[in-house]
Amino acid sequence: MNNDTIVAVGTAPGVGGIAVVRLSGKDALSIALSHLTAKQLTPHRATYCHFGELDDVVATFFPSGYSGEPTVEISCHGSTYIQQTVVQTLIESGARLAEPGEYTMRAFLNGKMNLSQAEAVADLVEAATPQQHKLAVSQLRGGYAEKLKELRGKLMDLTSLLELELDFSQEDVEFADRTQLRQLLSAIDSQVSKLLSSFSMGNALKRGIPVAIVGKPNAGKSSLLNALLNDDRAIVSPVPGTTRDTVEETLTIGGLTFRFIDTAGLRHSDDPVEALGIERSRRAIDEAMLILHVIDTTDSTDSGELLQNGKTTIIVYNKCDLAPAPPFCDRYSVAVSAKTSEGIEQLKQLMCNSIPKATADDVLLCNARHRDALTHVAQALERASAGLADGIPADLVAVDLRDALYHLGAITGEVTSNDLLSNIFGRFCVGK
Amino acid sequence: MNNDTIVAVGTAPGVGGIAVVRLSGKDALSIALSHLTAKQLTPHRATYCHFGELDDVVATFFPSGYSGEPTVEISCHGSTYIQQTVVQTLIESGARLAEPGEYTMRAFLNGKMNLSQAEAVADLVEAATPQQHKLAVSQLRGGYAEKLKELRGKLMDLTSLLELELDFSQEDVEFADRTQLRQLLSAIDSQVSKLLSSFSMGNALKRGIPVAIVGKPNAGKSSLLNALLNDDRAIVSPVPGTTRDTVEETLTIGGLTFRFIDTAGLRHSDDPVEALGIERSRRAIDEAMLILHVIDTTDSTDSGELLQNGKTTIIVYNKCDLAPAPPFCDRYSVAVSAKTSEGIEQLKQLMCNSIPKATADDVLLCNARHRDALTHVAQALERASAGLADGIPADLVAVDLRDALYHLGAITGEVTSNDLLSNIFGRFCVGK
Repeated sequence: MNNDTIVAVGTAPGVGGIAVVRLSGKDALSIALSHLTAKQLTPHRATYCHFGELDDVVATFFPSGYSGEPTVEISCHGSTYIQQTVVQTLIESGARLAEPGEYTMRAFLNGKMNLSQAEAVADLVEAATPQQHKLAVSQLRGGYAEKLKELRGKLMDLTSLLELELDFSQEDVEFADRTQLRQLLSAIDSQVSKLLSSFSMGNALKRGIPVAIVGKPNAGKSSLLNALLNDDRAIVSPVPGTTRDTVEETLTIGGLTFRFIDTAGLRHSDDPVEALGIERSRRAIDEAMLILHVIDTTDSTDSGELLQNGKTTIIVYNKCDLAPAPPFCDRYSVAVSAKTSEGIEQLKQLMCNSIPKATADDVLLCNARHRDALTHVAQALERASAGLADGIPADLVAVDLRDALYHLGAITGEVTSNDLLSNIFGRFCVGK
Repeated sequence: MNNDTIVAVGTAPGVGGIAVVRLSGKDALSIALSHLTAKQLTPHRATYCHFGELDDVVATFFPSGYSGEPTVEISCHGSTYIQQTVVQTLIESGARLAEPGEYTMRAFLNGKMNLSQAEAVADLVEAATPQQHKLAVSQLRGGYAEKLKELRGKLMDLTSLLELELDFSQEDVEFADRTQLRQLLSAIDSQVSKLLSSFSMGNALKRGIPVAIVGKPNAGKSSLLNALLNDDRAIVSPVPGTTRDTVEETLTIGGLTFRFIDTAGLRHSDDPVEALGIERSRRAIDEAMLILHVIDTTDSTDSGELLQNGKTTIIVYNKCDLAPAPPFCDRYSVAVSAKTSEGIEQLKQLMCNSIPKATADDVLLCNARHRDALTHVAQALERASAGLADGIPADLVAVDLRDALYHLGAITGEVTSNDLLSNIFGRFCVGK
């Protein structure tokens, strides 16, 4: 499968001024030349020529292109007819339509990037905000994968030594230095823990920071949501939620994307006795990174103590056009009027300020597959450490270490299976 | 305006594996280099480098690119964020966002193509069928414009000579050979007439061949339309009609696109007493190139003589599952059952066969602007010829010839105005 030549349109689907068709594989050059009026393509030189009778194109040959294979990029006019015909013609000459993500998969298989970097390409292409872009670039430039790979190499050596002891079990030798092993386990564990704890921030930056709007019935939660969204209609876009039939509303402020949780309840709560009960709010709070707690300033019975929680919370004194807000007791408090939009800008500023700034060096975990793998690693390391402490036999400790090695390897691609690769690259677009 | 450097995404809008940003104008190279890690770009060489901190890109410099100006094409990853940021960054460095069609307009203004060819680029990019593509390519390769330009040049010479006579009007000389002039007028007129008469076919190939489905109430017109469309749902696509609130249904058979006229009436005619009256059918027939005349085979009173017309007509004997069709009296007759789909394939074949095949050499007029200009040319030539025949003064004949010259020149762009250029290039996409 990996020896054949694949072809696909690499640019966005639809009509454009130009489109780029990519041909990759061992026969890429000969297949391309059989249709181009150019007699030869000098490597890396953009050559103007004709693609049969179809179109005038610019063709460029890369002896080792993005995929790590011989690649010809054909830049043609961007009509659907030309795009389809170029691809179809190349298929008739022996190329095969590329599977989703197949160029990047080949780049991985040809050693041009590790698996974690290959995954980052999909994130990079989907990034719509500066933060999402930054996360993807950091992962693409190596990110934590290289560090984990190095630690894994050391752990591999020590595990092999540990397993070697089994062959000499009669002789009661220790090839693997236990102190060194414990230090290494601790180093890996600390790296893994740090990454795991960064996941909620990494994921929030990637998917949008989850925000719950809570408060007593009639406090004005729904109006507040409207005021936040309407105020900046141009940059509000519904994004597909976790389930197919929900759409989450998002708001981008200063490059940070906020994702409002469970707004369906708020949106359709014209009923004064709101359907959104305490239990539902609790669940929203659990999922959120930031809480907007709306208090009706005109309601003296609303003390704001309804829902205590450990999350970052902004107290929003609503209806400030009708009554003065109490003196703020918290740096995350603001008086607004959802009706007149007074204070909404200050609230947005507060929302941005409440999110810890990631420094340039911070490595954030944002890939759910890596999170799962690292969770397995952490558990295996814990078992191994406990085993070492309890002095249990080396062969049992080795089983746990092998488990940790397996899951570490799955992140960087040193351990792969066809299923894993299909899962990862299946979510790419065709042509990447 | 034409000295500055313009920038736009050249590939289709949206997310793709890669996108191409085009920078064109005198400062293209220096603006690009101020953001690329490459120190220099060798002409025509695809250079891998970084665009600031943003992305790794492949940049290619063309000293005289598509627009006839220094051009840098930057091939980057295709996320919306990267595309926007590259364009925005280049704008901040002194480039300007390109207007729709501005690259092609510059190509025209820099003498890389004539106006008719520039217009063909928009058609080429929009082409979705082989016929539309072929029409655009023929126009792009020069088409009739070069021929018209040559004839215009000769006419220009003779008109100048004719006008020169005015300066010597006392002396009764004839600088312009009247026989030669008459021959030239006749040659141009023959060319113009041929082109004008090809417009209905050219336009039909470009926009879809207009088809009217007519027949008595209850003959099964609506069912026939459904049978034709449903049978091939995959390649049926609604296209915007001539007015904003109508959508025309099209069907592509063997590369030919058929466009059904006034199907709204058919679609919603559940009422046995059809709203679609004779008058409405007449109008559809006037607009059509092909008529499908549906006759209910079970209805002995339906002789098919309802609507005589000069257009190519296919007699469709419907309901052939219920009664035998009469012996065909016409090579364009077919028995079908819209209900069982029997005969629908034969009908489609017949529809294709009924359209005269354009030979490879046929030059077809498909641009409405050119049709209008050529109509003016034909009228002016007619007046000039009549004037010559009647021996009216040379200065009056010259006025008509100047009129013909003006409209001929408007096709190839030898005569242009800013308004004309805005009209033509305004319909392009940005980035072309």
